[in-house]
Amino acid sequence: MERTATKITIAEGVLDANDALAQANREKFDRTGTYVINMMSSPGAGKTSLLERTLQRLGDSLRLGVMEGDVQTTLDADRLERFGIPIVQVNTDPGFGAECHLDANMVRYGLPGLPLENIDVLVIENVGNLVCPAEFNVGEDAKVMVFSVTEGEDKPLKYPLMFRSVELVLINKIDLLPYLDFDLDLLHRNLDAVNPGVQRIEMSVRDGTGISEWCDWLLAKKPATVSR
Amino acid sequence: MERTATKITIAEGVLDANDALAQANREKFDRTGTYVINMMSSPGAGKTSLLERTLQRLGDSLRLGVMEGDVQTTLDADRLERFGIPIVQVNTDPGFGAECHLDANMVRYGLPGLPLENIDVLVIENVGNLVCPAEFNVGEDAKVMVFSVTEGEDKPLKYPLMFRSVELVLINKIDLLPYLDFDLDLLHRNLDAVNPGVQRIEMSVRDGTGISEWCDWLLAKKPATVSR
Repeated sequence: MERTATKITIAEGVLDANDALAQANREKFDRTGTYVINMMSSPGAGKTSLLERTLQRLGDSLRLGVMEGDVQTTLDADRLERFGIPIVQVNTDPGFGAECHLDANMVRYGLPGLPLENIDVLVIENVGNLVCPAEFNVGEDAKVMVFSVTEGEDKPLKYPLMFRSVELVLINKIDLLPYLDFDLDLLHRNLDAVNPGVQRIEMSVRDGTGISEWCDWLLAKKPATVSR
Repeated sequence: MERTATKITIAEGVLDANDALAQANREKFDRTGTYVINMMSSPGAGKTSLLERTLQRLGDSLRLGVMEGDVQTTLDADRLERFGIPIVQVNTDPGFGAECHLDANMVRYGLPGLPLENIDVLVIENVGNLVCPAEFNVGEDAKVMVFSVTEGEDKPLKYPLMFRSVELVLINKIDLLPYLDFDLDLLHRNLDAVNPGVQRIEMSVRDGTGISEWCDWLLAKKPATVSR
């Protein structure tokens, strides 16, 4: 008797499992027409401050929602609470092994806390880290990063996956340039070396530089089919 | 017949395996009397610049060695090469899955590149990341972190394991304080909240503030039994 072994292809690896869950998240976002941004940066590059500025500007013209990812604390969610928008906090500790990033499963856990049908643009503020967040799709439309000029021009070369994964780099804290030994031209060259021509906005969340350009970028993502 | 099952305790988990390798590293350091510092921070907080300053000051009085940990590139090792000290670069990509931290095994791989018998103090510059580096002992004597005031006062609360794991916090870039909305007293309170009384040095690698105090700390680690 001829026997043919049944071949079972087992999807291997954490990233495959992640992509399956990311797809499920994606289907939820598609159902409500919500545009989703996975926002990443080093610790303290200015993600939450940028969201505060953004909500001051766009609170009336765009229905924003936020998912805050942190290892611990609800400090960032607390800062945004006064804007009265939908916010959910996902902590990786306890519950997710104090992971240094959000993955699709963590985002899946957070989603029931958000009324997606009332959100035009959802910003997922990832854990502050230039390595692992870039490895995990969560079902987003776009990855965006905030880069602080205080971190040095060499960072695109040292963390290329992060800088390569994003479609927009917000170059923040340029108000500090007079007090730093920082070569902005070199940063632009290093960005082009790892992600040629990537869109970028020079910005100071503190003094407001570049915020209009960022808000225009965001408003262009407002789903055309959704009207208030 | 009475049967007694043989009980085998299997050490579980990545961290157990790591600790076994860290112990092996530790034994190597002990044989040569080398004091080992695991230096951690966010990306761009100033670790390499601090090492440059340190080598300028202590090049003649302390035999320093450096292990550079990065995801990619040898940029940091290249910066230190002019000092003529023993340096080895460990990249986590390729070879170690582009990990966001050094672990004991990666340090083990790097050690043959260093003449430990000629090194009083070895500084292991970890990957820039406030989460995972703190989870992996590598056989060091002390964990030290560089914290940049540009990152905000809330970081000890948001990344408590990192701030709790270290015995010295170098509070860097204080020359920028006049241009930041940063509450130094609040930072100190947050440090005490997660690691009460932890030793700290306010520092500006750029203008030299605090460098003497740091060098004194380092010199005190010089093994008494080693003479040149």
